[in-house]
Parts: sequence; C-alpha cells; structure tokens
Amino acid sequence: VPKISDTDKQERIERILDGARRCFARYGYEGATVARLEEETGLSRGAIFNWFSSKEELFVELARRDNERLLALFAEQGFRALVRTLVEEDPDWLAVYLEFGRRLRSDEAFRTRWKERAAPDLRDRVRTRIEGEQAAGAIRDDLTEQEIGRFLGVVLDGLVVQRGMGFEPPDAEVVVRLVEDAIRGQGRARRGTRDGTRARA
Amino acid sequence: VPKISDTDKQERIERILDGARRCFARYGYEGATVARLEEETGLSRGAIFNWFSSKEELFVELARRDNERLLALFAEQGFRALVRTLVEEDPDWLAVYLEFGRRLRSDEAFRTRWKERAAPDLRDRVRTRIEGEQAAGAIRDDLTEQEIGRFLGVVLDGLVVQRGMGFEPPDAEVVVRLVEDAIRGQGRARRGTRDGTRARA
Repeated sequence: VPKISDTDKQERIERILDGARRCFARYGYEGATVARLEEETGLSRGAIFNWFSSKEELFVELARRDNERLLALFAEQGFRALVRTLVEEDPDWLAVYLEFGRRLRSDEAFRTRWKERAAPDLRDRVRTRIEGEQAAGAIRDDLTEQEIGRFLGVVLDGLVVQRGMGFEPPDAEVVVRLVEDAIRGQGRARRGTRDGTRARA
Repeated sequence: VPKISDTDKQERIERILDGARRCFARYGYEGATVARLEEETGLSRGAIFNWFSSKEELFVELARRDNERLLALFAEQGFRALVRTLVEEDPDWLAVYLEFGRRLRSDEAFRTRWKERAAPDLRDRVRTRIEGEQAAGAIRDDLTEQEIGRFLGVVLDGLVVQRGMGFEPPDAEVVVRLVEDAIRGQGRARRGTRDGTRARA
C-alpha cells in the first residue's frame, strides 16, 4: 500500500462519500451493492473499505454530516433557512432515510449511535439559540426549549418523509409561517410579511 | 372449492388482514414471507391469495383502512383526536410505512393508487370540516384549506416517522397546542389551558 498524504487522504474520503451518496440515492440502501459503490466512486472495494469498515458506516457518516450541516444552519440562521434547505434537498437521497428507518427501530445499539451522531457542541448551540429567542420574547417561553425543539423536529421529519415518498410537500413559506405562529413569543406581531421581515410588536 | 357465505367471506378477509398486519409489524414488509403470512393468519397461501392478489395488495388494503379511519376521526373529532390516536399506534406497524416509503417514490403507478386510497367522500368531509372552522373563525382563513390540510399532514407524518424510527416523540398535548396556535383564526384566545378547554376571545 503506497503512503498517502493527509490532503490525499481527505480527498480520498470525500470522493468515497460523494460516490456513496449518489449510489444510495440512485439504488437505495439495500440496492447499493459493493459493485455499484465501486462504480460510483471509481474506486476498488479495497480502497473504499480501507477508510470505512462497512456500508453502514458510510451511510452513518453521510447522515452525521447532514445532521451537523442542518443543526449548524439552524443555530446560525434559524428555522426558516433550515426548511428552505430541506425542500431543495434531493428527494432520492431523503428516501434513503426512510429505508433506514425501520432498521433504526429494530437495532437499539445502532439507534444509540444514531442519536449521538451530532457533535454535542452543536446541539448546545441549537439549545442556546432557542433559549436566547425565548429570553428575547421571540419564541414562547411557556414551553421548554426541549418541547420547542422536538416540535420543530417533527415538522422537519414530516417534510423529509413527504419528499422522500415523492409527494409534493406544502409550500415552504407556508410551513415557516405556520411554525413561526406556533412558537412565537408574547412580544409578537400577528402576521409576517411576504418577504419574511416582521414588524416587532 | 367449497361455497362460502357472505358472512364467512367477510370473516375470512378480516382474519387475513389481522394476521397480515401482525406479520408486517413483526417482520417488516420484506420480511413478511408467504410462509410467515400463513403462520400469522393460520391459513394456507391458497386461502390468503384467493382474496388478495399479492402481498402488496394486503398492505395497501391495511393502509387504506388506516387512512380512512384517521380521516374519519379528523372529520368527526378534529386534529387533537387524531394525534392522540397516532401516539397510541403500534410503532412496529408504523415502521412498515417507512419501509414502504422508498418504494412509493420509485413506483409512480403505485403512488397514484396510494393517493387514491381514501374514499373521495371522506376527503370531502375533511375539507368541509376545515372550511367550516375557517368560516367560524376557529381556523385562520388567510391560508387555503389545502395549505392548512397539508401542514397538518406534515406534522402527522413527522409523528409517524419519529415513532416508527423508535424515537420518543414530543408530548402529544404539546404538539396539539402548538398546532392549534399555528392554525387558529382571528377569533382566538392566546393560550389554551392545560385540559385543552379554551376561552374564546
């Protein structure tokens, strides 16, 4: 095995993950055979599984990155940005999550790893954002930060499942307006304007 | 083949569906082999597939019944009753929907049949309920009936996917409060009380 620099190593890993994502989206998780992973990455199985111990590990790493990207987006820009990103996500890729869903349920060890796939500091930043908006009166404070966060999670998962199943989801702006009206604090205006700016009450 | 009365026929069909539901919940859609369907229903494959042309038709009939039951519940009792029912549904059964999700996406003919699985009159009753509540000021009328309905669908699908994946969903009452605050009309009180009764503004 030839030596490989850190840069080359990183490039190799990215290439494997890019190919694996395309492969999962195209053939589904079960349908993504080793031969097809080789084809989509342009690398041999030896080269692929030198960096990832299994197909499962490939998927989990992709899901971990998605999760981190979306949590960071929420922490930095809020729920609206998150919904907009989700409705632009490749439905073929989202469908892979559905396929994985039942597995997640039946394999508790895997579910535990799944829950831990987000960096703790990122989850702290999400929590801080919600609590900050509660303190500022932008988000209601008669519910806990956790209750608000879980509700947002339900709405997002609902969008993922509808898009992954191939149905036309409701308009992103409508979802955002409704969710904002649900979680808005007491210092709130009654209606948002079309472009999303909002007069403060 | 012995003759069979209409009552016996209906009993036979119910027995097949009951067994198939248990079988899907226990082994998943793919895992529900013909041998396992025979075991759970206590009937031979000949007897089962005399009434249903395929495993797919069994699942679609179960899903159709779920859908009708839930739409009827919404039309008669509203969103709160629907959420309460969903959070009591067997997660193993809900997980089967996830497994079916990707298939739904990749098979357009099947998706069309899926969309049509609810009786049109039932969908009309749901529409009538939402429009009636909009007219009465209980549900906001700055969004269309379809936009409201689709948003409720997203929330419900989000609950299904979280339960099907084995995660603890948010408290049902919290979800109901937040959704009610999202869709409430102008003639609305600001906050519900704990037991769900609500002063009118």
